[in-house]
Amino acid sequence: MGGKVLITDNVATNRIVLKVKLAAACYRPLLAGDGASCLTLARAEIPDLILLDCSLPDLDGIEVLRRLRRDPVTRDIPVIMISASRDAGIRLEALAEGADDYMAKPVDDLVLMARLRRLMRLRDTPGEGAIRGAALRALGLAEQAEAFEGPGLIALVAGRTELAMRWRKELQALMPDRLLVQSREEALAEGGTTPDIFLIDADLDGPGGGLRLMSDLRSRAGTRHAAVCIVRGEVAGEGAAMAYDLGANDLLPATFDPREARLRLRNLLRRKRRADATRATLQNGLRLAVVDPLTGLYNRRYAGAHLAAVAERAQAAGERFAVMVIDLDRFKSVNDRWGHGAGDAVLVEVARRLHANLRPGDLIARIGGEEFLVALPDVRRPDEARAVAERLREAIEEQPVSLPCGGSLRVTISVGLAFSLDDGGRRVETVDQVVNRADSALLIAKSGGRNQVTIERSAVA
Amino acid sequence: MGGKVLITDNVATNRIVLKVKLAAACYRPLLAGDGASCLTLARAEIPDLILLDCSLPDLDGIEVLRRLRRDPVTRDIPVIMISASRDAGIRLEALAEGADDYMAKPVDDLVLMARLRRLMRLRDTPGEGAIRGAALRALGLAEQAEAFEGPGLIALVAGRTELAMRWRKELQALMPDRLLVQSREEALAEGGTTPDIFLIDADLDGPGGGLRLMSDLRSRAGTRHAAVCIVRGEVAGEGAAMAYDLGANDLLPATFDPREARLRLRNLLRRKRRADATRATLQNGLRLAVVDPLTGLYNRRYAGAHLAAVAERAQAAGERFAVMVIDLDRFKSVNDRWGHGAGDAVLVEVARRLHANLRPGDLIARIGGEEFLVALPDVRRPDEARAVAERLREAIEEQPVSLPCGGSLRVTISVGLAFSLDDGGRRVETVDQVVNRADSALLIAKSGGRNQVTIERSAVA
Repeated sequence: MGGKVLITDNVATNRIVLKVKLAAACYRPLLAGDGASCLTLARAEIPDLILLDCSLPDLDGIEVLRRLRRDPVTRDIPVIMISASRDAGIRLEALAEGADDYMAKPVDDLVLMARLRRLMRLRDTPGEGAIRGAALRALGLAEQAEAFEGPGLIALVAGRTELAMRWRKELQALMPDRLLVQSREEALAEGGTTPDIFLIDADLDGPGGGLRLMSDLRSRAGTRHAAVCIVRGEVAGEGAAMAYDLGANDLLPATFDPREARLRLRNLLRRKRRADATRATLQNGLRLAVVDPLTGLYNRRYAGAHLAAVAERAQAAGERFAVMVIDLDRFKSVNDRWGHGAGDAVLVEVARRLHANLRPGDLIARIGGEEFLVALPDVRRPDEARAVAERLREAIEEQPVSLPCGGSLRVTISVGLAFSLDDGGRRVETVDQVVNRADSALLIAKSGGRNQVTIERSAVA
Repeated sequence: MGGKVLITDNVATNRIVLKVKLAAACYRPLLAGDGASCLTLARAEIPDLILLDCSLPDLDGIEVLRRLRRDPVTRDIPVIMISASRDAGIRLEALAEGADDYMAKPVDDLVLMARLRRLMRLRDTPGEGAIRGAALRALGLAEQAEAFEGPGLIALVAGRTELAMRWRKELQALMPDRLLVQSREEALAEGGTTPDIFLIDADLDGPGGGLRLMSDLRSRAGTRHAAVCIVRGEVAGEGAAMAYDLGANDLLPATFDPREARLRLRNLLRRKRRADATRATLQNGLRLAVVDPLTGLYNRRYAGAHLAAVAERAQAAGERFAVMVIDLDRFKSVNDRWGHGAGDAVLVEVARRLHANLRPGDLIARIGGEEFLVALPDVRRPDEARAVAERLREAIEEQPVSLPCGGSLRVTISVGLAFSLDDGGRRVETVDQVVNRADSALLIAKSGGRNQVTIERSAVA
């Protein structure tokens, strides 16, 4: 279950040492000795992470990174650049090209392993296993990189306000993002726009306070998906590893170079937005499964499940619920005489009026071509439900529907209404039976001349 | 963004003290002084968590818990029982009734807050915000509690094998689950059934080693969703809080009472299975959005997105791809003469044969009533694609399709085949244009007598 890690280093000994370490941690190591093999293996194997040495015999490590980032197949693979050089220029260049981290040799094993764990964990989170690539696109994921650029909102949280103010002063000149100095309480408070990134002093309110704030932010729905960058004395050792394990996306030393901070924050922002887009796409995909695309109402699949829940709750609370089955009168003739465009316009408008005349807790669904279902939970008196049904009928009758091609059309609905039986707590009928009784009432409304509400007989008994 | 926490305690001072602490941590506290108010508020407000004191003026705290667990509305709300009593009997009873934790007064604030964070974080994870309740049911979530019972697989991981063996001996007599002694490496290794729960010695391989193993398990796709229970010297203090923040679902003291361990593990197992079911339901929901329900092939929505990805990759790699549009010959007459049941059976069987005659990397989708689309990525020679198309045509023709009502029917397909242009890297046409060319070829195949493959002219030029 360990991820695939592609080790790229021109020195065979280095490769072997890393391979042994990774195998001991139960990852699956892949080895490349030069840039070309790295690119080929990355494309063929799509590793979960790439460890990339800066000096390679054929291509510059930075150039390999650039090519990885340009290829849609390898673009999103996390890359940790490793270099013997302590030259700040190379570090900045690597980060500018989209490296997820840059570590100077000798690498601290504890931190490297924690970093791997954190990147692996982030890698799979949105839509894990469910659906990927083309399927995400099919559900509406924008693939355009531009969608992930543009200024973001970054909260700066430090124990001493002066420190946060200094961060802001140093960073603001370098970046287009909105930088907001916040206290711990403000970071946790409700309302306002949620920051994309929190830059947090590890020792906020005493040792480890920043890490606790991070755990708090991660436990709340509003801030759970924000990226967190922890600022701490040093970015090595057990404490740094712990920060990653607690959920930090990145670390910066207390004496950070603002140019480096800017690049790291930009990379975090881009990844965070990509994850946001994936999540939004998954949610949209789920919506597609329960919504009728024409009218935007819930579909039959959803209606069945919702009714079951309504019935269960009514049963538990000793309440009754009402079900209406609603049919558009003579709808076939609309389609036949005015075409499907007109028919669709009628359905959309009828759906809109039905929805507008119900309360938020009521269910309205399109369960067939021209058939709708309404459920009213917790109906105390049959009269109330009958009044709702009459209101719906009038809302359709009173105003003709405008057609897309001009002109308008008078339409009406027939409504069959039924109530769950008040059996003093013992369940005697299924939801389907209530719907069937509403259906029978609908037939009577139809045969009685349409444009009317019929209540199923046993309910008023 | 803090969750709602319902504090139930009969002593006003206790309620106020807890309220202040929770408000300081930016939660929204709700207060109840007796069992009846707790039940009413829980139902009306659906808090994210309930802190429930054992001794209440009206109802026994355990009885309140029992009622919360019986009501479908409140059943899944996490409950932490708090009690002045150190009586093991009460503790065991609370856990047996499904309390998520039991804390003896005075409660360690640091641990309580970490416990809250952890439960809040777990609460929202599956399907967060996307879709809930009835929508989940609509997508197939089994609500039956029985689905979450039944024996599970629990891995026992301790530094000394004797310790894990002792755990197994003590627990096995009490529980029906499979208990498996594992080393750290075995826990991380691939293959086999993934345990539902890992019971881990905090000091495995030295101090904090168990917590690192937990972080490792959480970073891997296979074990990410397992529950983890950490066994440590004591379950109070900073170390315990840290264990929760690092992702522990529960803690047990080194000297745990096997009866308590059994109850805690059973509760973890039940919650874990419920989360598994929710996740599976969400994945199923996403599948519904991209799959044709009749044939199980991808739908038109997916096909468009997949083709776009194929084109993008072919472009980046300088390769060509092929598109086929396939139509069932004279399908309308099948429906008219044999009915829709027969028509559906033909579609299902044709879909099966087309799929069986393609490679895993190829795309096959149903894009209309009797129309299919095939995409072959990376086609080096037009002849290969033509051979595939011929194979598909033969696979349909060679064997009549059995009908559900008995008898069988001979059917054929027409295939239009087109290739992306080899333009030396410059994109000159859209995916739609390639599909349109395949469509034109299909028309020629149709007018040429059906049951044949036509290649679009410009491709072979």
